[in-house]
Amino acid sequence: MLRWITAGESHGPGLSAILEGMVAGVEVTTSDIGEQLARRRLGFGRSPRMGFETDQVEFVGGVRHGTTQGGPIAVQIDNSEWPKWEKVMSADPVDPAELDGLARNEPLTRPRPGHADLPGMQKYGFAEARPVLERASARETASRTALGTVARAFLRQLLGAEVVSHVVSIGGAEVPEGPLPQPGDLAAIDESPVRAFGDAATDAMVAEVDAVRKAGDTVGGVIEVIVHGLPPGLGSHVHWDRRLDAKLAGALMGVQAMKGVEVGDGFTTAHRWGSQAHDEIDPGDGPTGVTRRSNRAGGLEGGITNGEPLRVRVAMKPISTVPRALSTVDVETGEPAVAIHQRSDVCAVPRAGVVLESVVALVVADAALEKFGGDSLAESQRNADGYLAGLAEWWQRGGEE
Amino acid sequence: MLRWITAGESHGPGLSAILEGMVAGVEVTTSDIGEQLARRRLGFGRSPRMGFETDQVEFVGGVRHGTTQGGPIAVQIDNSEWPKWEKVMSADPVDPAELDGLARNEPLTRPRPGHADLPGMQKYGFAEARPVLERASARETASRTALGTVARAFLRQLLGAEVVSHVVSIGGAEVPEGPLPQPGDLAAIDESPVRAFGDAATDAMVAEVDAVRKAGDTVGGVIEVIVHGLPPGLGSHVHWDRRLDAKLAGALMGVQAMKGVEVGDGFTTAHRWGSQAHDEIDPGDGPTGVTRRSNRAGGLEGGITNGEPLRVRVAMKPISTVPRALSTVDVETGEPAVAIHQRSDVCAVPRAGVVLESVVALVVADAALEKFGGDSLAESQRNADGYLAGLAEWWQRGGEE
Amino acid sequence: MLRWITAGESHGPGLSAILEGMVAGVEVTTSDIGEQLARRRLGFGRSPRMGFETDQVEFVGGVRHGTTQGGPIAVQIDNSEWPKWEKVMSADPVDPAELDGLARNEPLTRPRPGHADLPGMQKYGFAEARPVLERASARETASRTALGTVARAFLRQLLGAEVVSHVVSIGGAEVPEGPLPQPGDLAAIDESPVRAFGDAATDAMVAEVDAVRKAGDTVGGVIEVIVHGLPPGLGSHVHWDRRLDAKLAGALMGVQAMKGVEVGDGFTTAHRWGSQAHDEIDPGDGPTGVTRRSNRAGGLEGGITNGEPLRVRVAMKPISTVPRALSTVDVETGEPAVAIHQRSDVCAVPRAGVVLESVVALVVADAALEKFGGDSLAESQRNADGYLAGLAEWWQRGGEE
Amino acid sequence: MLRWITAGESHGPGLSAILEGMVAGVEVTTSDIGEQLARRRLGFGRSPRMGFETDQVEFVGGVRHGTTQGGPIAVQIDNSEWPKWEKVMSADPVDPAELDGLARNEPLTRPRPGHADLPGMQKYGFAEARPVLERASARETASRTALGTVARAFLRQLLGAEVVSHVVSIGGAEVPEGPLPQPGDLAAIDESPVRAFGDAATDAMVAEVDAVRKAGDTVGGVIEVIVHGLPPGLGSHVHWDRRLDAKLAGALMGVQAMKGVEVGDGFTTAHRWGSQAHDEIDPGDGPTGVTRRSNRAGGLEGGITNGEPLRVRVAMKPISTVPRALSTVDVETGEPAVAIHQRSDVCAVPRAGVVLESVVALVVADAALEKFGGDSLAESQRNADGYLAGLAEWWQRGGEE
Repeated sequence: MLRWITAGESHGPGLSAILEGMVAGVEVTTSDIGEQLARRRLGFGRSPRMGFETDQVEFVGGVRHGTTQGGPIAVQIDNSEWPKWEKVMSADPVDPAELDGLARNEPLTRPRPGHADLPGMQKYGFAEARPVLERASARETASRTALGTVARAFLRQLLGAEVVSHVVSIGGAEVPEGPLPQPGDLAAIDESPVRAFGDAATDAMVAEVDAVRKAGDTVGGVIEVIVHGLPPGLGSHVHWDRRLDAKLAGALMGVQAMKGVEVGDGFTTAHRWGSQAHDEIDPGDGPTGVTRRSNRAGGLEGGITNGEPLRVRVAMKPISTVPRALSTVDVETGEPAVAIHQRSDVCAVPRAGVVLESVVALVVADAALEKFGGDSLAESQRNADGYLAGLAEWWQRGGEE
Repeated sequence: MLRWITAGESHGPGLSAILEGMVAGVEVTTSDIGEQLARRRLGFGRSPRMGFETDQVEFVGGVRHGTTQGGPIAVQIDNSEWPKWEKVMSADPVDPAELDGLARNEPLTRPRPGHADLPGMQKYGFAEARPVLERASARETASRTALGTVARAFLRQLLGAEVVSHVVSIGGAEVPEGPLPQPGDLAAIDESPVRAFGDAATDAMVAEVDAVRKAGDTVGGVIEVIVHGLPPGLGSHVHWDRRLDAKLAGALMGVQAMKGVEVGDGFTTAHRWGSQAHDEIDPGDGPTGVTRRSNRAGGLEGGITNGEPLRVRVAMKPISTVPRALSTVDVETGEPAVAIHQRSDVCAVPRAGVVLESVVALVVADAALEKFGGDSLAESQRNADGYLAGLAEWWQRGGEE
Repeated sequence: MLRWITAGESHGPGLSAILEGMVAGVEVTTSDIGEQLARRRLGFGRSPRMGFETDQVEFVGGVRHGTTQGGPIAVQIDNSEWPKWEKVMSADPVDPAELDGLARNEPLTRPRPGHADLPGMQKYGFAEARPVLERASARETASRTALGTVARAFLRQLLGAEVVSHVVSIGGAEVPEGPLPQPGDLAAIDESPVRAFGDAATDAMVAEVDAVRKAGDTVGGVIEVIVHGLPPGLGSHVHWDRRLDAKLAGALMGVQAMKGVEVGDGFTTAHRWGSQAHDEIDPGDGPTGVTRRSNRAGGLEGGITNGEPLRVRVAMKPISTVPRALSTVDVETGEPAVAIHQRSDVCAVPRAGVVLESVVALVVADAALEKFGGDSLAESQRNADGYLAGLAEWWQRGGEE
Repeated sequence: MLRWITAGESHGPGLSAILEGMVAGVEVTTSDIGEQLARRRLGFGRSPRMGFETDQVEFVGGVRHGTTQGGPIAVQIDNSEWPKWEKVMSADPVDPAELDGLARNEPLTRPRPGHADLPGMQKYGFAEARPVLERASARETASRTALGTVARAFLRQLLGAEVVSHVVSIGGAEVPEGPLPQPGDLAAIDESPVRAFGDAATDAMVAEVDAVRKAGDTVGGVIEVIVHGLPPGLGSHVHWDRRLDAKLAGALMGVQAMKGVEVGDGFTTAHRWGSQAHDEIDPGDGPTGVTRRSNRAGGLEGGITNGEPLRVRVAMKPISTVPRALSTVDVETGEPAVAIHQRSDVCAVPRAGVVLESVVALVVADAALEKFGGDSLAESQRNADGYLAGLAEWWQRGGEE
């Protein structure tokens, strides 16, 4: 069983995250994490290298000489802007005189619609929104990206599996029908300022974002995450919380700003007739013995991987801190007000892809560990190889047990 | 913490289910459960009363004299067709001579696309699909419906909250824009043969189902589940697996045949611009002190209820056992074949609503317990009342802690 | 991950229990369970056969034709005395006239010291003790014994491991130093009326129980549970809740009436000096490459099995319903009173052994599944065999990875 | 639900730990943690102040201006000796030339009996013991001590409850019968070089440690942890894993070097007759309405607190790195050898008390949160106050619901 817990506030000294349950022997370095964190800062012409230095990342535990050691893996990501915040966000009490008049310390009493601000204040009894937004901020996703890097290394080294994502729509601009991105396409997708697959898609989405920016607005979108190289048999139909689709849906909806998750053709399938909705089976080569005429199910049947690429789509809402500020209430006065304004981008969809890839990697790594067991990469691999060999044999024997 | 585990096969002696963690003092009877199980059999003119007698339901533990006792609540639902299956599905070994030639015992070697059949056989090393489909079958959802009845009783008695669902589309037929169904509309929805809200919607969906039936096909659809009466503050933004949206998405995607989940406007929101995507806030009366101009967020901001109706939509694929059988492979011979045919309906969408209501009730009840604590309904109520009173007071004082 | 949940009251219609997470392919029958339930009724000359028929046991799910199917395993144990209780313990409301004057329905307002009675009433707000004692009763351990039967079948079929227990003391009568009971000794231990190993121990404990009975009192004791045949490597040192000793201690202390748990020499070790407290290592044959000069650690070092027999001891308090009734307070009047008297034995220690064996089997089966993974017995076995072969090889190569 | 996860190696850059689920509004500072870490270094005349500066502690998340914020609380404890270890324990790969000849990097191939060394190497397939002992080391308990500080602050601020521990035996030297230490006695206990309560006890234990030291040996002992001020009703009898005794036993046995746990009189109770084993009840004043004639049960009946002081005892084995080295095998050569020698004390029992206090605080805080719910200290307090008031009222009304 894999567990991951993250901690830290947006403007605190740093983020702290722990991944517990990973096997020993997985190769991973801080620069692997730095690379994923850099991808997370992509968008509109930023280069991965540019952003690279800004996050100081460290393994505090669990990795030695580039290899996991079987114990919990702790990652610390420092906040380069901490000196500006160290009084306002100090863990220990600060002399009120030192806080007096600091703009950053002003109570945030005009909660933003679309954020956790107001319900968070009500739930926890806070007089202002800072304690809520500090933790609800998408800054936290850097932690999951860091831990997900370990999970993707595990999946690659165990199964040769690769996680890929691309943006399939921004506002009204959608990807035209086309082939599924392969692992080799990831570099090109990362080069696209909107992380779209193909020039036509990129151009349409860039135009949408430009229009939105001109209008002083923000915009949402849909991201597809694909895992190539998974064997059949991850997840299970036997209980609802063992289904891989359920686990993926929970973890993906658990990412800030996500409002929908679909597996394979998802909502489109719900509008289809049955004869056009499933993936017919033909005899075929390869370990699983079959081929499929389509992959509408997104590689999951009955909550179990079926050997086709795993494919999920996630709907991200527009950033709710719109430059044209939204109406709200000042909780201090009870009077109408405009919402507090935090620094904001026009469109966060492109860089959300790497976060979602990371979350998918964590969930799938957990399912692989549950299936294959083992305490070291070598042991898990031996078990996985035995299963795959058995699968081929099972097939050839006519499915005998 | 609330846990629910279900067991039992589609053609076994019965279904067994346990809900652990419910407080003492909730009023619930076997006829409450019978009523929900009857609703689950609704569709196309069946009356709740007709189906009522067919499921023999019993509380094996946890309830005495119509009141929960604080311990695990066990429900047993007998299978009225068990006598036909008792040899084929016997738990104990059966003399092979007795099984010989029984049609029901024939190995199912032609896995159905769209079901767990093939990946389940591969995962567990089964030579045929029966052990998979017996457990993967939607028959299991009767268990969750039964346990969910206890959860809805708890929510009603604790908070006056009510769970409602309606079908918003079947195939191409969709509900026109209109007001949200209220608790008082549930009876009318249950009367609709497709569980739609309003005559126009019903007529369009009935026409769709008729067309599908004539064509010898099946069809999917989308169901909306609404919870009225929840206070702000259930769920949390502080960790991904405490978010109520994440928990709902996981539990709903964990229902057989569901391929998508969205909260509020979900995927539609992802196509919107920010100024049109959020729910602006005005000063207002009532315990929360505010009103909202819209409910696009589906009552959840930052993974926390915000006092608006909770609203989720779930995409259900068409039944994959299409009368016009799909292509597959016979695992015994490796040759092309047509998929095994199990008894099947044209459209399972109408009766899925009560299952999804039940699952939502379980998840929300768990969130309420986490927020309010308590070991008896009286204690949880006192805590909830204290919170709600504090909320109003917090608001009036200008949000002071 | 293995989960087990039990439900049902002492005088309800039956007990319901579910074991979730067991692999497919384990051979187990209702008579295997019946046999363990019969052992649980042993003590003072009762024969296992005599008790055998009294518990009606059924697999409601998860087992077909004597083999587990990968899904949740549900066991139902009927209460043969249910007809006497069906009004008093009815799940549904009963006409008060029918309950009027029934002795069994009288409120139990004089809580027994040593039981959950009083704190349970306070916690749940009950006016009398029945709702507490119905669930707190040791009758529930029949459920864990039933589920544990599946776990022991798994351990035997996977690893050849066997779980054995014996009583090491009753009151002041203790087992003299001697060899550890082996699997082959279990039948003889079951023949002893006090489930002690050896005639001297049996005689001393029988004498103690006789003395207690004559004095109108009750008596406690200590039970040792041993698992033979476990490989090194179950459990882990990497996190406190992955340690096998922690899991065993939690599960064993979670059995009714248990007040202490020790691993290996436990409290005795705490009184020793270090040079006499550990198990020195010598080169040796066999898969692990070493032998040990002693087994003071009880087969667990750093929370991990080390290849020696796993050995834990559990302290059971005397039954608190002493024939010479204890002082208490009548909660209805607030006046001093003597505690309510429920049917009671002099000494429950002998028959507790099988319950503790079952709990140990469940915990160790879970650890084996975590180590070896797999979804079928065949797959878990292949993984375990690969590990054991690798272990021998690892040893021969001088510990290289 | 409270979760706590720790990470980090003994000689790594630091320890990282996260406590998830704590309410907002608890007052706690880094110096509170520093104080507990200093207590953890106590023993034989060291002053808390002396040790204070050596551990650099920081809240990375979850606390602002001395108050918890509702989000995960992350603590980082730096390793002051890291410069000596930064090559040997580097997370990233190091040029082998730089490691060559470093004594600290030598493979540890002679596993110590009594430690995780050998089974850990076998489980994870390591060629040497360093990856095992780095994580298995008791250094990790500093993390649990840090997180436990937050839990004790919560219990004190919520209920006025206080956690106290004292050493009740070292080797053959035991505390004479006497009164239970009260919160006000903690300072005196901390002054005792062996953390014993009373001069007689201190003198006997100091003499024992001196004798052991002279003999070149190590010695174990028994520690008692007491929680004063808990109301009845924490924990539950309804399911084995909700019992507070089970949770305590699991968490305490999960501390390095612990081999036994008992609740109240524990193993002694198992040797008693029933009439002398329980705590008779008399009418009394106070919120619970009763007094007890004794506290043999350790404040727990049926897994639920009963209002008496909670009392558990834990058996700690002697440090296994005995100066007079133990026999083992060199795994590189397969030849007999003496065990590797790590820096070691004669007796770790005195300083283990604060670790066990911290673990008890975490478990009891979790039980309090489960009972009382709430998201802020104010809310949890309101709920707890309501329960306590209800308890008194319940009692006065004669237990009516």
